[in-house]
Amino acid sequence: MSTRASVFIATSLDGFIARPDGNIDWLNDANAVVPSGEDCGYNEFMSSVDILVMGRNTFELALTFDAWPYEGKRVVVLSSRPLIVPAGLPNTVSASSESPDVLVKRLSAEGAQRLYVDGGITIQRFLAAGLIDDITLTLIPVILGQGRSLFGPIKNDIPLVHVTTKSFEFGFVQIKYRVAHDA
Amino acid sequence: MSTRASVFIATSLDGFIARPDGNIDWLNDANAVVPSGEDCGYNEFMSSVDILVMGRNTFELALTFDAWPYEGKRVVVLSSRPLIVPAGLPNTVSASSESPDVLVKRLSAEGAQRLYVDGGITIQRFLAAGLIDDITLTLIPVILGQGRSLFGPIKNDIPLVHVTTKSFEFGFVQIKYRVAHDA
Repeated sequence: MSTRASVFIATSLDGFIARPDGNIDWLNDANAVVPSGEDCGYNEFMSSVDILVMGRNTFELALTFDAWPYEGKRVVVLSSRPLIVPAGLPNTVSASSESPDVLVKRLSAEGAQRLYVDGGITIQRFLAAGLIDDITLTLIPVILGQGRSLFGPIKNDIPLVHVTTKSFEFGFVQIKYRVAHDA
Repeated sequence: MSTRASVFIATSLDGFIARPDGNIDWLNDANAVVPSGEDCGYNEFMSSVDILVMGRNTFELALTFDAWPYEGKRVVVLSSRPLIVPAGLPNTVSASSESPDVLVKRLSAEGAQRLYVDGGITIQRFLAAGLIDDITLTLIPVILGQGRSLFGPIKNDIPLVHVTTKSFEFGFVQIKYRVAHDA
């Protein structure tokens, strides 16, 4: 299929996306020293994305922001339980209980070019299903020691192809990999 | 104290130093495509090291190599159980059941300049005790999904200072951090 699925996420050096309770204070603290105007490639990445696919936790985190952060983008919230999209959100937001495989097939048939897969559990499900095509990982210079892992158990190795690495003067290291589906 | 303690290690992108059973076939496979003569800074690092400090697992892995890999270096093998150093090894190898703190104090008093702390459990103990000064991490382009983690639980965040990042054409990414003891 011609739809690409991408991960664009930050972790601590020990691979956590949040503390055990979901707190991302450490990430907010790190972002606070990023120079104004530096977005570490986020806007460029977002401009290549048609549709965001995220889990309920990520969705609920986004709802706590002052403004809905994905204006103008289709957002699919994966949830096994029924999800009521709060009033006031744009009609670009929908919920789905489809499996990653079924969802990607449907969005591909609808003409999606690139999916932004976000949230730890959702990323893990897509990786385990072999549905992720590229990963942009930004390493924050801190070891947390515990928290919610980006990566989870998978049955088979996933070989990667290194694409680019960029280090920032404020200590972030951003690495982009392509998943080697043909390996 | 003037003794520095350093980590120099490779992990999968998901932070494993070995498979669940200790197998490092994935690392050997990755190293097999490294051009001859490229050591990713290992010899330069080793030339700055006085003494290796490792756990029993790492020691036993080193014993399986064709030749003893640490000729001419003092090696301290940490083990809570009595350890018999096999005959035929140089007398630079000794065993210790000291705590990381006590060991570093002793080696420092003996004039050690730089310790190379190796092995997952040993690294975790030294990190938890605040005894690691710098970390050189080489990320191998593969996700394993399970295995023995480099990092383990710690009580407090360990802030890092990014020093350098280098990416290699064969896909390894090597990042060097200093531990921000004063943060």
